[in-house]
Amino acid sequence: MNKSLKLSLACLAFLTVGQAFSQQKDIKLPPEATEFWEPVVRQITPGEQNHMAPSDAIVIFDGTSLDGFVSAKDGSSPAPWKLENGVMTVTPRTGDVQTKEKFGDMQLHIEWSAPTEIKGEGQGRGNSGIFLMSHYEVQVLDSYESRTYSNGQAASIYKQTPPLVNAMKKPGEWNTYDIYFTAPRFNADGMVVAPARVTVVHNGVLVQNNVEIKGPTEYIGIPNYKAHDNALPIKLQDHGDLVKFRNIWVRKL
Amino acid sequence: MNKSLKLSLACLAFLTVGQAFSQQKDIKLPPEATEFWEPVVRQITPGEQNHMAPSDAIVIFDGTSLDGFVSAKDGSSPAPWKLENGVMTVTPRTGDVQTKEKFGDMQLHIEWSAPTEIKGEGQGRGNSGIFLMSHYEVQVLDSYESRTYSNGQAASIYKQTPPLVNAMKKPGEWNTYDIYFTAPRFNADGMVVAPARVTVVHNGVLVQNNVEIKGPTEYIGIPNYKAHDNALPIKLQDHGDLVKFRNIWVRKL
Amino acid sequence: MNKSLKLSLACLAFLTVGQAFSQQKDIKLPPEATEFWEPVVRQITPGEQNHMAPSDAIVIFDGTSLDGFVSAKDGSSPAPWKLENGVMTVTPRTGDVQTKEKFGDMQLHIEWSAPTEIKGEGQGRGNSGIFLMSHYEVQVLDSYESRTYSNGQAASIYKQTPPLVNAMKKPGEWNTYDIYFTAPRFNADGMVVAPARVTVVHNGVLVQNNVEIKGPTEYIGIPNYKAHDNALPIKLQDHGDLVKFRNIWVRKL
Amino acid sequence: MNKSLKLSLACLAFLTVGQAFSQQKDIKLPPEATEFWEPVVRQITPGEQNHMAPSDAIVIFDGTSLDGFVSAKDGSSPAPWKLENGVMTVTPRTGDVQTKEKFGDMQLHIEWSAPTEIKGEGQGRGNSGIFLMSHYEVQVLDSYESRTYSNGQAASIYKQTPPLVNAMKKPGEWNTYDIYFTAPRFNADGMVVAPARVTVVHNGVLVQNNVEIKGPTEYIGIPNYKAHDNALPIKLQDHGDLVKFRNIWVRKL
Repeated sequence: MNKSLKLSLACLAFLTVGQAFSQQKDIKLPPEATEFWEPVVRQITPGEQNHMAPSDAIVIFDGTSLDGFVSAKDGSSPAPWKLENGVMTVTPRTGDVQTKEKFGDMQLHIEWSAPTEIKGEGQGRGNSGIFLMSHYEVQVLDSYESRTYSNGQAASIYKQTPPLVNAMKKPGEWNTYDIYFTAPRFNADGMVVAPARVTVVHNGVLVQNNVEIKGPTEYIGIPNYKAHDNALPIKLQDHGDLVKFRNIWVRKL
Repeated sequence: MNKSLKLSLACLAFLTVGQAFSQQKDIKLPPEATEFWEPVVRQITPGEQNHMAPSDAIVIFDGTSLDGFVSAKDGSSPAPWKLENGVMTVTPRTGDVQTKEKFGDMQLHIEWSAPTEIKGEGQGRGNSGIFLMSHYEVQVLDSYESRTYSNGQAASIYKQTPPLVNAMKKPGEWNTYDIYFTAPRFNADGMVVAPARVTVVHNGVLVQNNVEIKGPTEYIGIPNYKAHDNALPIKLQDHGDLVKFRNIWVRKL
Repeated sequence: MNKSLKLSLACLAFLTVGQAFSQQKDIKLPPEATEFWEPVVRQITPGEQNHMAPSDAIVIFDGTSLDGFVSAKDGSSPAPWKLENGVMTVTPRTGDVQTKEKFGDMQLHIEWSAPTEIKGEGQGRGNSGIFLMSHYEVQVLDSYESRTYSNGQAASIYKQTPPLVNAMKKPGEWNTYDIYFTAPRFNADGMVVAPARVTVVHNGVLVQNNVEIKGPTEYIGIPNYKAHDNALPIKLQDHGDLVKFRNIWVRKL
Repeated sequence: MNKSLKLSLACLAFLTVGQAFSQQKDIKLPPEATEFWEPVVRQITPGEQNHMAPSDAIVIFDGTSLDGFVSAKDGSSPAPWKLENGVMTVTPRTGDVQTKEKFGDMQLHIEWSAPTEIKGEGQGRGNSGIFLMSHYEVQVLDSYESRTYSNGQAASIYKQTPPLVNAMKKPGEWNTYDIYFTAPRFNADGMVVAPARVTVVHNGVLVQNNVEIKGPTEYIGIPNYKAHDNALPIKLQDHGDLVKFRNIWVRKL
């Protein structure tokens, strides 16, 4: 088009917009109009420090007993791991443990520490895992100055999504995970219509930001959702390494 | 339909499913097939404790100077608030302050404390606010055993979304906010095509879970998105109350 | 830092990345490894043309009877609107109508036409509305070359979100809406934990792309979610104008 | 706790809620307070029927010429496929074709037809594919009464997500895909921070509802995002079968 037409159109656009703006009425509202008193927000008491269980948390492990867990082999016999000095340690080759209680949408706080004696490389160093709903693994691994595949290092959604950054502490030091998890939803056909989602904060650093979980964690092959219950136990993995855990609590969302 | 037909159909369904299952091949893969070494995850050093700035954070306020802020009135003159004993306090009627640096997607850690002398009720007690990108307010208020409208209490997206629970500490005690924010995205027409989203953790408790922000915070009337820059300052509000702040750091995501 | 140090660091980075890349193993997999036979995808028969009901749809209105609807006044008496020539027309001042069946997550196809006789301006021209779950309105209005507020024109989420573009047909011509709706989810406290979401296609044009609905539609004041059932009727509005409807079907998702 | 205490607490809760409710002020607002005139919604003209290009669409293929495409081998030489009777047909072993224009967020309408001569089974029948941004494949396959793996049949996100239902038409009949696509977003580290998302409507039936794409489509192995440009060509696959295409148009969102 020629330039003068262009200018005319520009003017027209300006006028149209001007007109539109002029339609916006300048209403003087009372601010109360946008204040809502319901629903009433439930009061809780937070922990004195952020890693401590708030009043509405279910304490799974506070260092005094393994009663919050059972063996994952049969889902009922006592958890076969070691309890010492308020710390729970994987007992290699005794198998995974899982919570007695079942959870769907949840906030999970958990602390873990890699063995100080460094043996092996990559996946061989301080390997364990936290299986949300027994299916979806947030990786536990000694990734401190140790390279492995990105979607397999600590704080990855194992074999799916690497963490945004590597925020690991040294072997023997305590790492914290704060995990905000939304369970998947399935329709009548068994198709997943809302995949699981998770936010993971590792030692105070955001590493997974409302990330979609692609399906149940698979060591071999790709994940593929399969319909399951709305609430399932949390499982901790025995991967043969002396990984330690402490201070585990969960809030149902 | 009659019952025997129903049964036949059920059998048919069973057989069909059986057939389908049988098609799934049992492949023996090497596990390496699902291991990805790129992108390489960037290494950072987390704070010794979770509230401390990790190595990749931009420290806005560490108690030694107000240099990270300017007055929001003109965007350039020094921040007119009080600095004492490593703590920054609102100086009533001096106006809001804002960060020198601009941010879009971010992780923000900030601590605040309501005045110990309790004056007034509801919105009158320890009122301030954190405006992400200068537009989107996470409410700061003394909501400890004090009722106000749900979408206006501490940790609400102000006048939009109440927190899931009330996790307030007593006046004079320090509250922490850990905020994970995704900036809005606009198209060429100025329409919002991806609204802002935010996760807020209040004293270690999840209170906003990847919540969509409905538009810029409005005291009067409803929010309505308007296209803006990808990065803007964080603003802290002078609402006339002696709210204190400390330990403010931001990570660009 | 000085330039040679910079160079060295760049080299180091290059080497590190190079090393990382070299770790990626070149696995030869059988492609079957990523083929999943479950869940089995349910077979349906689509309509001969896209506006026609597929085999798994619930036909609400096909032009032969108003039996799919009842009066919304009492939820049980016959729908008081007019049926003529296969078309349903609002009978002003008889009140809204609603489906007998209740729906949550759904695909809804509906066609509507604004009156050819143009009376009034803005909201006064061919006004009606489709209330998903009886609460969430997709606006019906004659917005053809007629200006009103953006969040109130046809295909807006009424008083919430304007459509991305205005795809209206002339008064008397038939408009189609294809609506893909995900119902909101509430927790035990009555807080909304997953707001409703909707995609709207107007005359084949995307106008709402998986947009979050901010709460129940309010003519006056802002929306505020309140917990409700998982399935509720679809309501059509009597706004006093002679809006016509035809070809209404729904698929449960 | 004992029963009488329980009752007292219930009463207390009731009173508290009653009190809370009573705080909600009954404000009489003018409805104009929630009416927004900006942004102004851009006017377009939809197609006469929904499959026809609206006025703001870029027509890639209307049956008259292959000029909208080039060979994907070199990205510049003419598209080597056959044009006959307004229809474009894969010429086996000439390679993929791709659009000259590049797209990110988009609405894509495309029609395709499987060969009437049925040869082979499963993936062997009428195989082709639509690669959004050249990376993310919506599968094209003759899945009419032909079983293959669920995440490989027509309208699947290939090797990722099966469609919600199978809405295929018979070989030789025309299928429509209406695709609403949001491009992925990457951060400075090359990590994906917002994966691609897609809604697919197959013959008027919703089959993918704002589904997250897990990464670039891989025939062998699992998908893994890699940072790329904001806009890239759309690619159509030569899989050796005589699949036909017609009526292809795109709207930039």
